[in-house]
Amino acid sequence: MPESSLESEFRAIVRVAHELADLSGPVVLKYFRKTTPVENKAVGGAFDPVTKADRGAEKAIVQALATRLPDHGVIGEEFGVKPGTSVYQWVIDPIDGTRSFIIGSPLWGTLIGVLRDGKPIFGLMDQPFTGERFWSDARASYLSRGGGRPTRLKTRACTRLEDAVLTSTHPDLFESPAQASALARLKDVALLTRYGGDCYNYCLLAAGFVDIVLEPALKSYDIAALIPIIERAGGRVTTWDGGDASNGGDVIASGDAHLHETALELINRR
Amino acid sequence: MPESSLESEFRAIVRVAHELADLSGPVVLKYFRKTTPVENKAVGGAFDPVTKADRGAEKAIVQALATRLPDHGVIGEEFGVKPGTSVYQWVIDPIDGTRSFIIGSPLWGTLIGVLRDGKPIFGLMDQPFTGERFWSDARASYLSRGGGRPTRLKTRACTRLEDAVLTSTHPDLFESPAQASALARLKDVALLTRYGGDCYNYCLLAAGFVDIVLEPALKSYDIAALIPIIERAGGRVTTWDGGDASNGGDVIASGDAHLHETALELINRR
Repeated sequence: MPESSLESEFRAIVRVAHELADLSGPVVLKYFRKTTPVENKAVGGAFDPVTKADRGAEKAIVQALATRLPDHGVIGEEFGVKPGTSVYQWVIDPIDGTRSFIIGSPLWGTLIGVLRDGKPIFGLMDQPFTGERFWSDARASYLSRGGGRPTRLKTRACTRLEDAVLTSTHPDLFESPAQASALARLKDVALLTRYGGDCYNYCLLAAGFVDIVLEPALKSYDIAALIPIIERAGGRVTTWDGGDASNGGDVIASGDAHLHETALELINRR
Repeated sequence: MPESSLESEFRAIVRVAHELADLSGPVVLKYFRKTTPVENKAVGGAFDPVTKADRGAEKAIVQALATRLPDHGVIGEEFGVKPGTSVYQWVIDPIDGTRSFIIGSPLWGTLIGVLRDGKPIFGLMDQPFTGERFWSDARASYLSRGGGRPTRLKTRACTRLEDAVLTSTHPDLFESPAQASALARLKDVALLTRYGGDCYNYCLLAAGFVDIVLEPALKSYDIAALIPIIERAGGRVTTWDGGDASNGGDVIASGDAHLHETALELINRR
């Protein structure tokens, strides 16, 4: 396939992703900070809230995508896999950070990622309440409610773990002894640890305010859209053993490549 | 003093507080998500960041207050106590949630509270990045960036701890065994626990999305402005032994009075 065709496909993907985020924002906001019935999605009684907002937004995104790029496949958090006939697959999480959403915190986002032959090539995170959007094209970019020109996202240099700001969504998610140990090892050395945040943490890392995000047991749709944003901003995202993070698992993102190596070494030290 | 005089003093306080928040917002935002030198305020090397934003905003607030209500005293987080000659004392925390602020999270706020003879009679929390303001007058009120008419804040009914959303800024702040035990007891029963948030959590409680906020070792300026907001919204704020929380200490806020009693009983059970 000639380069120009790939490029025009990519431009179409970026354009459509912004259109999908423009559509999904109002759908999600209609339910934010409203008294919403919380269904129980999990089998066996575990607390796993799903709001109508989640399902409504995913439906809106998938329907709009089908009219624009009908041969592209979709992996959604709510409705599962819709196969396509092209090399492209969209990975959608309408509300990453459902628990933040239901307590009224703005630290959640709509994640829209695109895989080509299974590899993340594009990502977008939209936060419609604060009016912020983070995405990757040739660079990593940010636009706030104010509008105007997008600003460039760039991770910051931070070579020493002693100087690093570490974030993670919740310490109780580190369920196994190995997971808990990984968190404890980094946290004991890091300058500062903050919990809460979900996808918002990764975007703050891309923007140069957070140095490490450490999360256990992610799904593909939790991370696929964030990888291109972080990488184009100069950061790294891998599993804890240094492998490909695009299918999820235990994931670490760092703004500084040297810090990433230091953190991986500490996590895996016997 | 005739009632009408008290009422007109209160109206002046509410008006001036909004003017002070209008002034401080732009001062603080000038430093938000910028590369700001982080000074070390603590003695002995503990990490206690103070930004120029904190000091700049407090200075702006105190100066503006001096021209408007010169006989009122001030207790500020940064510059300490400025005595007044009236029964009123303003309690100012320009950035409650400094750690959130320096990592680029919007979960911080400017707290402006007023004491009359040492008792909190008015509070305001301003979040200039999201454009939100929470305050108390006769009611508890909320205004978002959209403007328009303020909406009324009201805590939600939640009588059972098993149904409660519990929030707290950071589990490591519960340093003593008694503090750690209080958190563990509530967390083990509560439906859902989220960390992060500082003053933002209390405002989400006033708005009816969080049921309990549990925090150890608060200062007066961390809580004084929030008490009138929560109480006018229908909630309760006390120390863990059920006493007056306006001087800080180990503090618990609940949206539901019955839940508050249940939580206090569980914290204090032998």
